[in-house]
Amino acid sequence: PRRQDAPITHDLQVAMEDIFNGCTKKMKISRKVAGPDGKLTKEDKVLTIEIKPGWKAGTKITFPKEGDQLPNTVPADVVFVIKDKPHPLFKREGHDLIHTIKLSLRDALCGGTIQVPTIEGVKVALPLTDITKPHTVKRIPGRGLPVPKQTDKRGDLIVKFDIVFPDGLPQATKDILKDLLPAV
Amino acid sequence: PRRQDAPITHDLQVAMEDIFNGCTKKMKISRKVAGPDGKLTKEDKVLTIEIKPGWKAGTKITFPKEGDQLPNTVPADVVFVIKDKPHPLFKREGHDLIHTIKLSLRDALCGGTIQVPTIEGVKVALPLTDITKPHTVKRIPGRGLPVPKQTDKRGDLIVKFDIVFPDGLPQATKDILKDLLPAV
Repeated sequence: PRRQDAPITHDLQVAMEDIFNGCTKKMKISRKVAGPDGKLTKEDKVLTIEIKPGWKAGTKITFPKEGDQLPNTVPADVVFVIKDKPHPLFKREGHDLIHTIKLSLRDALCGGTIQVPTIEGVKVALPLTDITKPHTVKRIPGRGLPVPKQTDKRGDLIVKFDIVFPDGLPQATKDILKDLLPAV
Repeated sequence: PRRQDAPITHDLQVAMEDIFNGCTKKMKISRKVAGPDGKLTKEDKVLTIEIKPGWKAGTKITFPKEGDQLPNTVPADVVFVIKDKPHPLFKREGHDLIHTIKLSLRDALCGGTIQVPTIEGVKVALPLTDITKPHTVKRIPGRGLPVPKQTDKRGDLIVKFDIVFPDGLPQATKDILKDLLPAV
């Protein structure tokens, strides 16, 4: 049996938008090829990867025997491993996306309607009727990533809150707040 | 060479107070002992462990050859591995202790002096002069765990805050807050 080297593994960073929509990536690889005279030449080849909507980080795409073609050796497999490129607005948790929104203490206490960004680019309105607490979590159904093999099914968009306190308040304001807010 | 079995490992859960003060633990072990006639009898033995102040979880104490005494075998070592018993008030981070204190939104905004528990049982006063924000961290030096081999040196007590928001507020209060609190 001829020897085959261990697979050559490349990480493939994929933007969240590309995971959402699916996309085609063309990856150029270089390999050594031995001619009939035994001389090695360098050969470039383009491998095409179809990324399906909703693919998870860690998904492996294997191109069998696309490594160096050396005498008396089975060329190694070339493997691409999908990685999530960090996104400025969303973190991924399975099919759900998590967005942390900065919310003023004023809006947290008094309520209002906030605009939440989505991966498809549009914003959705989220009314805050109750008091928003530091650990409050809201879930917007169907605004996460597609679920592979389940047409039209999507995860949720999970909204967390980073409540922005004022840096300081005038003593007069503090005195009023002391009366307004409950002690416990 | 005679065969020795793998060490027999026991976890030893130690309370944070015992890590703080140091303590002596007496552990009863049972082992089989082969007599001259080859008959096995069960024997109990008490092993004494001196836990030094500040020992870390993962510290191993080895009692060589205290396992079963069988013919043609070197008795296994008996090993105890220190584990931190969860404490209701403190989490450990190296030599520091972390205490999360519930603070009303009122005190977070208006300030005041809070009483922080310590591992030695007394409370220390912590004045809150600035506004306390959800991610505020205060450090009380020298109120953590002892540092082994450095007499009188102790880690810090790190205070984190869980700011307790009211569950609801009357609309009239919300209207005043809207004027009092900054929009951003």
